[in-house]
Amino acid sequence: MLDSINLTSKFWLERQRVIREQMIPYQWDIINDFKAVTIAVTNTGGDSDALDNDKSYVVENFLIAAGKKQGKRGGMVFQDSDAYKWLEAVAYTLECCPDPQLQANADKLVDIIADAQEDDGYLNTYFQVNEPDRKYQSLYMSHELYCAGHFIEAAVAYYQATHNQKVLTIATRLADNIDAHFGPEDGKIHGGDGHEEIELALLRLYELTHEERYLKLSQYFLLVRGQDPDYFEAMKRRDVELGRKSVIPGIEIMQDIFNNAYFQSDLPVYEQKDAKGHAVRVVYLCTALALGAALTGDEKLKAAAHNYWQSIVQRRMYITGAIGSTCHGEAFTADYDLPNDSMYGETCASVGLTFFAHNMLRLEEKGEYADVMELALYNTVLAGMSLDGKSYFYVNPLEVRPEYSQLNPGLKHVLTRRAGWFACACCPPNLARMVMSLGHYVYHCKDETIFADLFVANTANFKFGERELTLEQSTDYPWDSTMTFKVTRDNGKGGAVKLALHLPQWCPHFALYHNGKLVSESDKLGAVKCEQGYLYLPEGIKEGDVFELKLKMNAVLMESNPLIAADYNKQAVQRGPIVYCAEACDNGKELQELHLGAEGDLQGHFEPELLDGVYVITAHGARRVNDFAQGALYRPASTRKFAEQEIRLIPYYAWCNREEGEMRVWLNPKP
Amino acid sequence: MLDSINLTSKFWLERQRVIREQMIPYQWDIINDFKAVTIAVTNTGGDSDALDNDKSYVVENFLIAAGKKQGKRGGMVFQDSDAYKWLEAVAYTLECCPDPQLQANADKLVDIIADAQEDDGYLNTYFQVNEPDRKYQSLYMSHELYCAGHFIEAAVAYYQATHNQKVLTIATRLADNIDAHFGPEDGKIHGGDGHEEIELALLRLYELTHEERYLKLSQYFLLVRGQDPDYFEAMKRRDVELGRKSVIPGIEIMQDIFNNAYFQSDLPVYEQKDAKGHAVRVVYLCTALALGAALTGDEKLKAAAHNYWQSIVQRRMYITGAIGSTCHGEAFTADYDLPNDSMYGETCASVGLTFFAHNMLRLEEKGEYADVMELALYNTVLAGMSLDGKSYFYVNPLEVRPEYSQLNPGLKHVLTRRAGWFACACCPPNLARMVMSLGHYVYHCKDETIFADLFVANTANFKFGERELTLEQSTDYPWDSTMTFKVTRDNGKGGAVKLALHLPQWCPHFALYHNGKLVSESDKLGAVKCEQGYLYLPEGIKEGDVFELKLKMNAVLMESNPLIAADYNKQAVQRGPIVYCAEACDNGKELQELHLGAEGDLQGHFEPELLDGVYVITAHGARRVNDFAQGALYRPASTRKFAEQEIRLIPYYAWCNREEGEMRVWLNPKP
Repeated sequence: MLDSINLTSKFWLERQRVIREQMIPYQWDIINDFKAVTIAVTNTGGDSDALDNDKSYVVENFLIAAGKKQGKRGGMVFQDSDAYKWLEAVAYTLECCPDPQLQANADKLVDIIADAQEDDGYLNTYFQVNEPDRKYQSLYMSHELYCAGHFIEAAVAYYQATHNQKVLTIATRLADNIDAHFGPEDGKIHGGDGHEEIELALLRLYELTHEERYLKLSQYFLLVRGQDPDYFEAMKRRDVELGRKSVIPGIEIMQDIFNNAYFQSDLPVYEQKDAKGHAVRVVYLCTALALGAALTGDEKLKAAAHNYWQSIVQRRMYITGAIGSTCHGEAFTADYDLPNDSMYGETCASVGLTFFAHNMLRLEEKGEYADVMELALYNTVLAGMSLDGKSYFYVNPLEVRPEYSQLNPGLKHVLTRRAGWFACACCPPNLARMVMSLGHYVYHCKDETIFADLFVANTANFKFGERELTLEQSTDYPWDSTMTFKVTRDNGKGGAVKLALHLPQWCPHFALYHNGKLVSESDKLGAVKCEQGYLYLPEGIKEGDVFELKLKMNAVLMESNPLIAADYNKQAVQRGPIVYCAEACDNGKELQELHLGAEGDLQGHFEPELLDGVYVITAHGARRVNDFAQGALYRPASTRKFAEQEIRLIPYYAWCNREEGEMRVWLNPKP
Repeated sequence: MLDSINLTSKFWLERQRVIREQMIPYQWDIINDFKAVTIAVTNTGGDSDALDNDKSYVVENFLIAAGKKQGKRGGMVFQDSDAYKWLEAVAYTLECCPDPQLQANADKLVDIIADAQEDDGYLNTYFQVNEPDRKYQSLYMSHELYCAGHFIEAAVAYYQATHNQKVLTIATRLADNIDAHFGPEDGKIHGGDGHEEIELALLRLYELTHEERYLKLSQYFLLVRGQDPDYFEAMKRRDVELGRKSVIPGIEIMQDIFNNAYFQSDLPVYEQKDAKGHAVRVVYLCTALALGAALTGDEKLKAAAHNYWQSIVQRRMYITGAIGSTCHGEAFTADYDLPNDSMYGETCASVGLTFFAHNMLRLEEKGEYADVMELALYNTVLAGMSLDGKSYFYVNPLEVRPEYSQLNPGLKHVLTRRAGWFACACCPPNLARMVMSLGHYVYHCKDETIFADLFVANTANFKFGERELTLEQSTDYPWDSTMTFKVTRDNGKGGAVKLALHLPQWCPHFALYHNGKLVSESDKLGAVKCEQGYLYLPEGIKEGDVFELKLKMNAVLMESNPLIAADYNKQAVQRGPIVYCAEACDNGKELQELHLGAEGDLQGHFEPELLDGVYVITAHGARRVNDFAQGALYRPASTRKFAEQEIRLIPYYAWCNREEGEMRVWLNPKP
């Protein structure tokens, strides 16, 4: 098993440095309201106009709940989760970069949370302070178990990083409180939370504590979902009857869009065939399905996870690993309905898709999971933050025109520059915890095999029973695609340990060298087994072994399935896992007039000074000459004229780090 | 001047027959609640959920206001206007087809309205019954002058058709009441109505009565608009302060989208450069600008009308003459932002665009106005009704996929079959009055010249002082493009009367014959003057004269300005004024995969049994073969494979008259 890992990847260390040095302190200031922040931007459909826009209230809410401060509890009903995700990001940060001051702050936050927790283990500042008589009664939108889940995830991570016992105690008391209130037994609530999260969190807590009750409760939540289609509806009706207000200002309790499909409770999980409703909810549910299946071996859970996987990845995902085609409910829509301009593609949803893919890998060794994981990570997740870590995207479109976002209300959720903070601030801390925990995603182990899932330079220590070894991965990925795996330490005890390397779906040709000798390549595998996206080395590894994997990584013109009307007749450029885009500041306005050249015309080079260092691709393309008469919108089709234009493309994740302007991923093909 | 006109056009008589025999009786039943109608569909952004959905209340509201019935006043705040538009449609119907029973019903409605009118002339059932203390105080959304305007328009038409004096008396008393309350004088309200309509209605009343006060009041409303940017905002704030409810259930008084731009009150009318806000409001305003300029000769009004015209027709109009790119506020958005799927394209807006174009023609003889008029009429306006007259579109998209409309909430306003009625029922009666009044749009006269603006077979009587003559236009337009104009009667008195014929912008070549002799053609004009889209015959016309205009009318592949990203690389087929579309029932699903052939491959033929008789176009095209691997969404671009496919296109206006399914106007060009 993986014992510890230290990233050495220049690419990812820089992202982590920005998060560590910029985002985590910035978010600490925000959740403590140490400085006013302009929370001018919301993307959740007008649900937060009623909130103050210069205060987060996050930590203050806990102090109020603990009775240590007077005042009004503020922010969204799920505001507590901002603190928890911050704590989780800190946990991963401390794993790689010990920082006593940061740890002291985090410990202090744990103390504050502990003070806020009630004697029976209940923890949620909204209901404790504002509506104590409404606990666990408005689960369709209360986010109580969602927040609890985020705390539990944070607690597991923080305990693993620091062995802070208090954080774990809060988590188990909270889980026990939930266990006491929810379940099939008489007198308990027969259902779960409107926003999935507790399911996966309980599994993580089970993995740490081995307490079977948590596994059982997680399974209960997974399987009860959708069994009673009236479960949430009855709660809503009751709240309306009691004259209660919606827990989210601006959103009506009975609002159409928040139907059972939105909550994935229209059908029991075994019967779900399509990814429907709120995208983040779906992938959090899926993560628990995959992990639950991995931990229990339950084939029906596995089948349910497969159904969701196929629905998302084969029919409802953008080329950037973004998901969620509409801002209405931040949701999935229909198969192949993937508009590039009005889409949602929430940062959190791609974080969740990464979780899902990662846990599918624990279930079965298929490279497609690693493929989607890197697609989501290198494109949508990273696009969620500016290079300096000071601003964030919530929505990640593939096509943007600032004046349309400004003048077309149907596009107003599509920000054309990153914002400093959000009233619904789920994405920035989610991104932070994802990137800071990247080490956890590089390898997974099954039996005595180490699977190298992501190409990220690192040094990792493994233990398999008595056997201990250190594996060093060196690479300049994603810009370069030679990966060197070196066994630098091996105690030689125990049985054989094998190595399997991900062979990405985008790679047309590989060559694998063992201690300098070519042992396998695409058309001549030799003793290496290539199965479902992994290369399995035939022999056990030992100290001194050097494996060099060379992947052919060209800039490639991509096309989409013709069933996706939005991309029909268009091409995108991808190189390895990196999807490219054109920005107006490089190519002029009216990007829809650009035509790429032939694939052979694509040129690439690394520009160390640009956008923290990116590999730029240029295409010997063309721009349509607009020879329409002044004021003519339509005319008989005539021979189109083109002017040669060198098209300059940058990685999608780095867009909008220079100036506001048009951006496009899908461009026209060579005329 | 035109004295009377009788249409003989087979195409239009059939449309009028359906309206006369089907729509007008159907709408009479609806407004009287003679039978329950399912009003299941709204397109106005959730503003009518609070309404009953099987009752219109229209006539009952007047009875309640008159004190002749007890009960709750129902329907939208502007529900009265449904009765008025019905009355106006009846007026035009009676002009061409006397019908004593229909006239008796209409007279009865006039009596009921007369009873409802208050002693001081005020007339609006919502405020009379529900909020008498709020009259003229919530003009941003009260629709009081809007409803009044519709009554006045109906009254002018009904008076002209029937000489019913009572209807005119109601109208003048109503106009006088408005005149007493609005104007620059101290003690009057210094502003107008949130929804333009009164401006153009007062001009029509002025044309009939020659009462200068009405002209002056109309000019006041045109010019006061936007002078005080706080005018509507102050009313809203006051209503909120007084604790008043929104007059439209489900819409908040302070709702963001209903800003000054929505009402065209962000700037004075002379300073408006772009069509902004609610599209119907814009074109009703524009109609009054154009007519006001024509009646007064005011050059500044004319310039304002020009600005709007250019903004709409040169930058913000669909190829079908549809306008309004977003459902949010049923509004214009940005230049060239013309999405085909999420658009609005309200039927009423194209009716209004026809009004605007028609009145621009009164201002100056430019064929482009007639071009836009026929584009809007033959495409979007006619698409607003089913061929049997029993169902209606409010929104007229150029691209539809039923499963996306069903599953993507951002497209839910895009109905995929026509509805029987709407909670906001502006469109069906608007369409009815437009089509029934078509005779008014065929010619206009300036000095002693008859301008033939539309090609519609008819017999028309003209008077110019003492001179009286009858002109017969024979044509099978829009399917055939030979028009014969014959002077069948001429009393020979008075001075010369000349004839000018519209030369449509779509026509690449014409030939004009006088009494069988070729007198002019495109490249050899002869004595005929061709100026700005009109052919001016050199001599005065006289009895026995026969002019035959032959227009070359091929099916043409059209393209859009490259600035319209939504249509880039696409082609549409147009023949004369008729824009074509592909439907799945003819071409199979996944219409985005279809590619047209070359223009020379387009074939056409008339199918008398299809869709009440349409000219069908077939293209020797192709369909992309979807050779993607099962479950693959994206792949390296490879050589595209095509299968030949005969593509069958029908006129856009006739879509969705067979079965529900995909539809597309813009298709891919020949591969």
